[in-house]
Amino acid sequence: MKVSLLDHTDEPELTVASAARLCYSKSTPTELKNGLTQKEAARLIRMIYELGHLSVFEHASFTFGVEGISRVASHQLVRHRIASYSQQSQRYVNISGSENFVVPKTIKESRLSDKVEEFLGRASELYEELLREGVPAEDARFILPQAVTTNIVVTMNARELHHFFQLRLCRRAQWEIREMAARMLFEVVKVAPTLFEKAGPSCYSRKRCSEGSMTCGKKIKSQEEIFIENGLHIDTGNQ
Amino acid sequence: MKVSLLDHTDEPELTVASAARLCYSKSTPTELKNGLTQKEAARLIRMIYELGHLSVFEHASFTFGVEGISRVASHQLVRHRIASYSQQSQRYVNISGSENFVVPKTIKESRLSDKVEEFLGRASELYEELLREGVPAEDARFILPQAVTTNIVVTMNARELHHFFQLRLCRRAQWEIREMAARMLFEVVKVAPTLFEKAGPSCYSRKRCSEGSMTCGKKIKSQEEIFIENGLHIDTGNQ
Amino acid sequence: MKVSLLDHTDEPELTVASAARLCYSKSTPTELKNGLTQKEAARLIRMIYELGHLSVFEHASFTFGVEGISRVASHQLVRHRIASYSQQSQRYVNISGSENFVVPKTIKESRLSDKVEEFLGRASELYEELLREGVPAEDARFILPQAVTTNIVVTMNARELHHFFQLRLCRRAQWEIREMAARMLFEVVKVAPTLFEKAGPSCYSRKRCSEGSMTCGKKIKSQEEIFIENGLHIDTGNQ
Amino acid sequence: MKVSLLDHTDEPELTVASAARLCYSKSTPTELKNGLTQKEAARLIRMIYELGHLSVFEHASFTFGVEGISRVASHQLVRHRIASYSQQSQRYVNISGSENFVVPKTIKESRLSDKVEEFLGRASELYEELLREGVPAEDARFILPQAVTTNIVVTMNARELHHFFQLRLCRRAQWEIREMAARMLFEVVKVAPTLFEKAGPSCYSRKRCSEGSMTCGKKIKSQEEIFIENGLHIDTGNQ
Repeated sequence: MKVSLLDHTDEPELTVASAARLCYSKSTPTELKNGLTQKEAARLIRMIYELGHLSVFEHASFTFGVEGISRVASHQLVRHRIASYSQQSQRYVNISGSENFVVPKTIKESRLSDKVEEFLGRASELYEELLREGVPAEDARFILPQAVTTNIVVTMNARELHHFFQLRLCRRAQWEIREMAARMLFEVVKVAPTLFEKAGPSCYSRKRCSEGSMTCGKKIKSQEEIFIENGLHIDTGNQ
Repeated sequence: MKVSLLDHTDEPELTVASAARLCYSKSTPTELKNGLTQKEAARLIRMIYELGHLSVFEHASFTFGVEGISRVASHQLVRHRIASYSQQSQRYVNISGSENFVVPKTIKESRLSDKVEEFLGRASELYEELLREGVPAEDARFILPQAVTTNIVVTMNARELHHFFQLRLCRRAQWEIREMAARMLFEVVKVAPTLFEKAGPSCYSRKRCSEGSMTCGKKIKSQEEIFIENGLHIDTGNQ
Repeated sequence: MKVSLLDHTDEPELTVASAARLCYSKSTPTELKNGLTQKEAARLIRMIYELGHLSVFEHASFTFGVEGISRVASHQLVRHRIASYSQQSQRYVNISGSENFVVPKTIKESRLSDKVEEFLGRASELYEELLREGVPAEDARFILPQAVTTNIVVTMNARELHHFFQLRLCRRAQWEIREMAARMLFEVVKVAPTLFEKAGPSCYSRKRCSEGSMTCGKKIKSQEEIFIENGLHIDTGNQ
Repeated sequence: MKVSLLDHTDEPELTVASAARLCYSKSTPTELKNGLTQKEAARLIRMIYELGHLSVFEHASFTFGVEGISRVASHQLVRHRIASYSQQSQRYVNISGSENFVVPKTIKESRLSDKVEEFLGRASELYEELLREGVPAEDARFILPQAVTTNIVVTMNARELHHFFQLRLCRRAQWEIREMAARMLFEVVKVAPTLFEKAGPSCYSRKRCSEGSMTCGKKIKSQEEIFIENGLHIDTGNQ
């Protein structure tokens, strides 16, 4: 899996902070934005976050390129409706030659690892046989295991990202989408550190678990913990 | 595949028509609804449709139970964001024992039909072996072919349904989601015949193809044609 | 102000509960819905609410007729984007003759009450003068005070209603939209008592205030309290 | 009225075009974006537009500062639900001293122009009197005419902007929101000329009127025409 930040609102923190200020000011939007320093923007963003007025976070938009996730993960991902997606089409793109499948660690470490490898190889062969036989790619793909990888471009605004991170960075989320969310967070904290300094599962962002009796029982105390648990090792400074 | 209408706004046509009338009237919503006959509602709905003021169609909501579609189709379906979904979870529901896979006709009719059957059987076996080995269902499912079936509850309002039908009843849509859309249309015309009398692909609903140079070249002239092409045989009266 | 429930998903609680059950079951949607009693549905809905899986609440939709709110309130209302609206048009409906303005209690009880009455009368006269002079209604309305009343049809699903009630039934919400929300709640608890038994401001629904340092300091302990504070006097049984 | 582009997705055309290409390619999002020239991006965007696959346009987001529109216009504006808004609050911002009202040309040019001016002055005075009397700003504003100005920050993606322009640049749209839309278009064609070269009312963007029997009968042939009709005089090059 690889996640990159393809593009984003140019000055996310200044834009969000000036929108926030507008609500309580007689000044015009341009005056407000021109009059803001990064430091003042950071102060405002922290205040807004505490008050829970997250609608202003919507003015900052982030576009990610996601490579090599399974169709299991992409099916979960696109359930988030306040977002935009462009996904590699299995109707038009011939996946043949692709030995790329996502194999869960529990399978890799099981006795059945080799059998599964063999099975996935068999799936690729059969897919190609079907294509050679004249079956259209859009039908041949029915036999491809859900482990098959896909690429997708995702755009979410900062408010929806906070919501996405809250759900998908929880230890109870599935490991693959959790890793994807961790990599997304890893990218956005670089370009909008204050906007995302509190982003994470409820236990981190709101200091309380949202999972009730299903709780894992171990609070996350820093974003660094999230990155380490998901195999990302660099310190972001937000703790 | 089976599609049923689980529930819907009780009086969809009277409700839509009274909302439409409200926009241009001094009367109150209840006065307007109480004063409407089904026939007058039908007249208003036809007028609104011609004017393209489809926002009032949003007041009528329809909930479908969909059984036995593939995960290929459900992945396409949930890309429609102005809708609500509850889907059978592959994280929690053990699919084992399920010999239910959707096999495209092009595969069934190909020389490879038996090989595919055998492969799908092998997939089921391997899935069950993985479970017995202690691999969690949420990981074992990675090896399941995308042909595996799922059940899903879908709610859409009448405006979004019109949009959905326009895209997915086109002959260029994939056959499985097209059949699903046809079955959904088949259900809603029974309870809201006027609201959906024009629903269908662009060539039927707007009398012009939306596919440009990709056109199939054969206009659909009645909803009955759609039903017949998708294996549904009863005449609905909307032509 | 008058709020009526114009229409709704016919069996909201059975539909929501069967959608919830589907996620964790091999049974089909119709089997699940047919197999449910109201009592079992109520048990499931309570469980879902505790777990916070409110997405299934989206399958139940409610349509309200709202009469006689000010344009101040309607402007706030339509900021809720996950909803459908049909509003009386000031471009096409001549408001003349309307002495209907919403006058806040703080004004009525002030020394300026008569002056305000006179001013509103002057506004109505001037509006009619403008119309007689040939100014189109869509322009004449610019001089109408924001207190001028409007009628609107609103559709929201049960999840969005919970969110709406959480924000707008808070004592810090503006009094007019708060009363409107109270009247909406009053209607829906009649037809879907379990679905809405926890609906209310955070202090009631989640047992904690969401307003931080801005808190009013007085927790709401029952829906009856909400109704009484908003001038609605009948006991609903949800406490 | 003043409209400025506060911020936007940094490279809107390259981002949209690489998302479009992803759907039909085996390459990764970053490879695709890095491999694109502006010219190639423009070619792809034109192709997408012709095919009607506008979902990829959603990856480009634009944030506007809008100053000095009436509450009539802002009420219409916020009916567009696929957008984000932050509006100057009349609950918290004391409008007093503001002689700023939007007065329609039909009123200015009528015999009643002076009477209206006087009435608006009376409204300002009464508003201030109410505040002095201790009536809260949130209540005093009920007497303010809908002509009163407001400031608002608006974010829309390029797909929604196309839709917004289609509705609001039509000659049948109300003049104030039409001017606002024209000013928004004027800003975005500067930073994303290809993405918006076809943006405009149906008669311009789709070469056919969408207003049926209500048509104004005069097709718009260039964006320059839109700008001129709305008092904006500079040529953008998109014709």
